[in-house]
Amino acid sequence: MSPLDALTESLGPAACLRSEPDIAPYAVDWRGVYHGQPVAVLRPADTAQVSTALRRCAELGLAVVPAGGRTSLAGAAVPMAQGPASVVLSLERMNRLREVDPLDNSITAEAGCTIEAVQNAATEAGRFFPLHFGAQGSAMVGGALSTNAGGIRTLRYGNARDLVLGLEVVLPDGRVLDDLRRVRKDNSGYALRHLFIGAEGTLGVITAASLKLFPQLARRETAMVAVRSPAEALRLLARCQESGAELVAFELIRKICIDITLKHGTNIRQPMELSTDWYCLIEAASTHAAIPVREALESALMAGIEAGEAEDVVICESEAQRQNLWNIRETFPTCSRMEGPGLSTDTSVPVSRIPDFLERAQALIAGNWPEGRMIALGHMGDGNIHLSLQAPAGMGHAEWQARAPEFEGLIGEIAVELGGSFSAEHGIGQSKRAAMAKLKSPVALDLMRAIKATLDPDGRMNPGKVLPPA
Amino acid sequence: MSPLDALTESLGPAACLRSEPDIAPYAVDWRGVYHGQPVAVLRPADTAQVSTALRRCAELGLAVVPAGGRTSLAGAAVPMAQGPASVVLSLERMNRLREVDPLDNSITAEAGCTIEAVQNAATEAGRFFPLHFGAQGSAMVGGALSTNAGGIRTLRYGNARDLVLGLEVVLPDGRVLDDLRRVRKDNSGYALRHLFIGAEGTLGVITAASLKLFPQLARRETAMVAVRSPAEALRLLARCQESGAELVAFELIRKICIDITLKHGTNIRQPMELSTDWYCLIEAASTHAAIPVREALESALMAGIEAGEAEDVVICESEAQRQNLWNIRETFPTCSRMEGPGLSTDTSVPVSRIPDFLERAQALIAGNWPEGRMIALGHMGDGNIHLSLQAPAGMGHAEWQARAPEFEGLIGEIAVELGGSFSAEHGIGQSKRAAMAKLKSPVALDLMRAIKATLDPDGRMNPGKVLPPA
Repeated sequence: MSPLDALTESLGPAACLRSEPDIAPYAVDWRGVYHGQPVAVLRPADTAQVSTALRRCAELGLAVVPAGGRTSLAGAAVPMAQGPASVVLSLERMNRLREVDPLDNSITAEAGCTIEAVQNAATEAGRFFPLHFGAQGSAMVGGALSTNAGGIRTLRYGNARDLVLGLEVVLPDGRVLDDLRRVRKDNSGYALRHLFIGAEGTLGVITAASLKLFPQLARRETAMVAVRSPAEALRLLARCQESGAELVAFELIRKICIDITLKHGTNIRQPMELSTDWYCLIEAASTHAAIPVREALESALMAGIEAGEAEDVVICESEAQRQNLWNIRETFPTCSRMEGPGLSTDTSVPVSRIPDFLERAQALIAGNWPEGRMIALGHMGDGNIHLSLQAPAGMGHAEWQARAPEFEGLIGEIAVELGGSFSAEHGIGQSKRAAMAKLKSPVALDLMRAIKATLDPDGRMNPGKVLPPA
Repeated sequence: MSPLDALTESLGPAACLRSEPDIAPYAVDWRGVYHGQPVAVLRPADTAQVSTALRRCAELGLAVVPAGGRTSLAGAAVPMAQGPASVVLSLERMNRLREVDPLDNSITAEAGCTIEAVQNAATEAGRFFPLHFGAQGSAMVGGALSTNAGGIRTLRYGNARDLVLGLEVVLPDGRVLDDLRRVRKDNSGYALRHLFIGAEGTLGVITAASLKLFPQLARRETAMVAVRSPAEALRLLARCQESGAELVAFELIRKICIDITLKHGTNIRQPMELSTDWYCLIEAASTHAAIPVREALESALMAGIEAGEAEDVVICESEAQRQNLWNIRETFPTCSRMEGPGLSTDTSVPVSRIPDFLERAQALIAGNWPEGRMIALGHMGDGNIHLSLQAPAGMGHAEWQARAPEFEGLIGEIAVELGGSFSAEHGIGQSKRAAMAKLKSPVALDLMRAIKATLDPDGRMNPGKVLPPA
């Protein structure tokens, strides 16, 4: 019996895709940047099948590439183009919400549930699941945890990692680590779950998670503020935080992003006079209707104007107006692709260093790629500005993309020099392994390699991802 | 040259205590339960000296027991009585606050800073450091992180682990892992810092940490509520959370605890009529003065009374009244020792299972130790009730203590059966290794042992702690 026949026999035909057209969607990432051909796609229906699949793959010497909604921006869920024989292990059929408990403020979801499904189930139970990012309708729990997804509400609720109470993980040899408790305090030995969160499937396969729920938001206020510079935005952020306005999001957006969105987006209205180069998109919210969120936000922003930290303020008067502001933010990535090729980065710095970071990045761009336009928008409250370089009109994709390694490398270096990270929320995948090799400390890399060798001694779990070649 | 002479030469005499009277305080834990004699006490002044100390100890084959404020309730910071030759590595001289940055909402503190020193520095910078527990005046950053300390505010701010942005760790071979970034988002490989947090010094020595700061609390309201049962307390907790009252703490206290505190405490006043067996100590707080915390809490509690979930409510009218309530809670451990011997536990369960847990514990006690009195007080909002068994009057310490292993084991089992943990916030140390062996899953123990063997192949870091003998 061939190895694939053996797998099919173990899991059943429904769990084993082998024909070329069935496999094709799993052989490329959603941006079409990364290609890699698996020998089969396994779609287990439950944890026991994941265990069987991993045990059989170990026996057969097949590498395993775990996949969820496959919205990774770093190519984490696609086999390497030149990698060893591998299967894609898709968790998409494991999409049950095992338990929702409002008293425990917890929800237990299988790896294949979309983030949106978890949000909706929380809402139905009178609770709130705060993880929120662009791809949430497709991204799944397993992938969001494996990449420690971020998004726009981490300022208040933390990253995906911070929302986990317990995990169920299948180890490379098929054993199941059942740590799916939903307790808030558990100091019984090493925090194993944190090894698997953010490991991008290189140490094992997350099959389910208990996640934290929060009180629903009763009032929400959204504002856009024109500022003259990132330094002004920084002072305004501190002012809002000190004022006690209960921030949920504080995004920084360069004017060019709004221009591009107005040009290519549908039903986007210009939110205010665009007389400065920088804008803050701010959202505050409370869990109690009696809490005067609007007054708190308004008075902080007005004080900001008086102190010369803000030029102009719009506070939304309607849900339509609020939606328009968020549409500008959230449709930008699509609009930017319509505008032309771009080189993107995903760095973070301490919040206080954002002005330095942007100044140094701007100088770097002016010196090296004066033909490019500097895009900057992102999560100011987390120090995570997504800086990118938009190609000049008419430039071809491949031609512009040739600059990517140098651009990403140099921007990553600036972030690290300022005490930040070259990889903030998208993960390493295939795309940032060179940066890992160059910018991560040798001691940290040694430890990571030792851990990898301990948990996955044959190196079969998502080979080629996260860790650079030794 | 003897090994100790070699160490003294490497670190200088100020960093190497060798005389019996100098060493004596480090050879016993603060409760006087655990004894273990080190061959010397090393007190390095900086990270470079910690590195030298660990490298030299590796060469000399000496075990290393890291220690901070030595307030562990589990004997984590004292050498094993029958352990290998070891030094205590005290971080007490590393007590510099390296950096406080209000814009980044971060503070970088060395391992020997007390928790109170961090709280005070935060306040001076106009910020708030929320970690709060009884021993905070003595407990130090390194120990609080190594044991992932909890306390009364985890309901809102999480455990010590959740407050960490970055760590500096010296590995067993003396190499320094410098991951002291103060960024909010960093997805560059495995989350190494979470391995060392909660590892009780068995994998390396935490020498410094960047910690999160929060906005100061502008308004604070504290209430005590009489309830008929833990089930009522549970409904009241859910009601308060759903109401959007911004809870900081929700403690459950059995009447006997108040009685004992009134009997032995100084300047403790009876807070209300003690007509029921259970009381909730609730604190809500907001970061903005305009937020009507009192109204929100009051209306939730009044609704609780109307719904039959609460019998009587006192909301503090003065800081003195508030202090009195917290004194009852925080002096109880001392008063309980004055009352006589007690057997304590540190379990957690999902919040929804607290009534079951207490009912089963009560039945167990009635059946096995009817002469004991069930003490229950703790962090209801975290599912972490500290259950203990107070000896009958006149019972000697040793006689009562003989029941400890069985009592702790059976209470731990109930917690685990209800989906909880036998070790919630104090850690394993020496005291819960038997429970680790019995109640932790074999897969989890295997993984922990593999990680220990990878990071500390000679088993010299805090031997005998956390992991049970294989």
